[in-house]
Amino acid sequence: MDNRAIGVFDSGVGGLTAVRRLHEIMPNEDIIYFGDTGRVPYGTRSPETILKYARQDVRFLRKFDIKAIVIACNTVSAVALETVAAETDVPIIGVVWPACAKALSATRTGRIGVIGTQATVRSGVYARMLTAARPGLSVHMQACPLFVPLAENGRVHRGDIVPETLAREYLAPIQAAGVDTLILACTHYPLLSEVIADVMGPDVTLIDSGAAAAESVRGMLIPAGDRAGDTRYFVSDDPEGFNRLAPGFLNGPLSHPAERVDISDY
Amino acid sequence: MDNRAIGVFDSGVGGLTAVRRLHEIMPNEDIIYFGDTGRVPYGTRSPETILKYARQDVRFLRKFDIKAIVIACNTVSAVALETVAAETDVPIIGVVWPACAKALSATRTGRIGVIGTQATVRSGVYARMLTAARPGLSVHMQACPLFVPLAENGRVHRGDIVPETLAREYLAPIQAAGVDTLILACTHYPLLSEVIADVMGPDVTLIDSGAAAAESVRGMLIPAGDRAGDTRYFVSDDPEGFNRLAPGFLNGPLSHPAERVDISDY
Repeated sequence: MDNRAIGVFDSGVGGLTAVRRLHEIMPNEDIIYFGDTGRVPYGTRSPETILKYARQDVRFLRKFDIKAIVIACNTVSAVALETVAAETDVPIIGVVWPACAKALSATRTGRIGVIGTQATVRSGVYARMLTAARPGLSVHMQACPLFVPLAENGRVHRGDIVPETLAREYLAPIQAAGVDTLILACTHYPLLSEVIADVMGPDVTLIDSGAAAAESVRGMLIPAGDRAGDTRYFVSDDPEGFNRLAPGFLNGPLSHPAERVDISDY
Repeated sequence: MDNRAIGVFDSGVGGLTAVRRLHEIMPNEDIIYFGDTGRVPYGTRSPETILKYARQDVRFLRKFDIKAIVIACNTVSAVALETVAAETDVPIIGVVWPACAKALSATRTGRIGVIGTQATVRSGVYARMLTAARPGLSVHMQACPLFVPLAENGRVHRGDIVPETLAREYLAPIQAAGVDTLILACTHYPLLSEVIADVMGPDVTLIDSGAAAAESVRGMLIPAGDRAGDTRYFVSDDPEGFNRLAPGFLNGPLSHPAERVDISDY
């Protein structure tokens, strides 16, 4: 048994979709969550800036007695995972490969769609990983730059013409490609899954990358003993906004209100 | 004559609407522009974080031989102007008072609307300044949180149902209040002025806060001598995105491509 905590970080509140799944499937684990709310979003920034921010996020989590770090952010996982993993002395789990593995199990036709931030799509890492694992796959990527602001402003519901119009536009080329599996390669996007599913139709399987990463963690880490795990939350801006948005991502209340940390010290 | 440069900063690319107006009315001036593209947006962050970032932006501009600093960002002007002005040894000009002065000249009915970021609206500074200058005014403020992402993604044109729907929603209470003057209290918003004007109708005067600040600078500073001014641009993330978006805000090409600076060093 390994009672050390699991560190999880994201650019902001989106990574809580991974924490939610960790709570469901590994309720004994202590979790330390960091959300970089003072510098969110990451997905529109350059690879150098994303790497710099990711290194600071890892250094902050290394202050705690942790057994692994989950990068619950597709942008960081796509752009900086290998570099920070090589520099860090605990296992680092990203969301990209777990999401790919789930998509490879789900697809019947070999046509897979991937939607994410501009940085994730530009990195090309999803297409490389999927086709390396199974040559001949047809992978279709599409950036959805307004989905993160929509999720952060609660504009995610069926019947709202704003997310519905943008989802129809962004997803049109993915639909035209006839995919049967769609990776939501941004931890904010599961909040829009109702609207996305309406556009894609019932025959397309949606893959939640944060949940996939959480399931991958369970298969990999020595678990904590039989007890109730505790989760602490840290953010780099005033915790008020995070505390207000978090229950929607966690699908339940925060166990503790978030604490503030100055990430530029790391 | 004072040939020292004018420093201008903003959270990102939006402050170029003020630079555009400076170019038009003060073509002899050298300008040093800083856009904090590595940490944009500011308008969703807490007052403490906004003040911290503003202080770093000012310290960067103070490296140059400048005669004044224009805070071409309503969020910083609303939240941090007085503090950084008290700490700095050159005049600091914000956008709030110049925009208020222009609105006070424009209104006939005394009913003024103000739209801006969440931080600007929460600060309440526009209502305080306007009613201090003219008691009895009726001021109506409204945050438009998705306008900045729309502007940064080029979703600003008439005929696009996404900005049109959001503009109708955000502006409904302002319209219902029967304002005759509307302050665009965010330097991104002039890009949406076509859509905003369609909703508000031809009888409402729109006030561009960046342009107002530029006009205020002209009235206040000893000008440069008779020569062609030069503008240098600095950003805190990869300049590529800035260089691509900037011509839309400047309504013309960049004189020099932007240079990158690590703002966390300041």
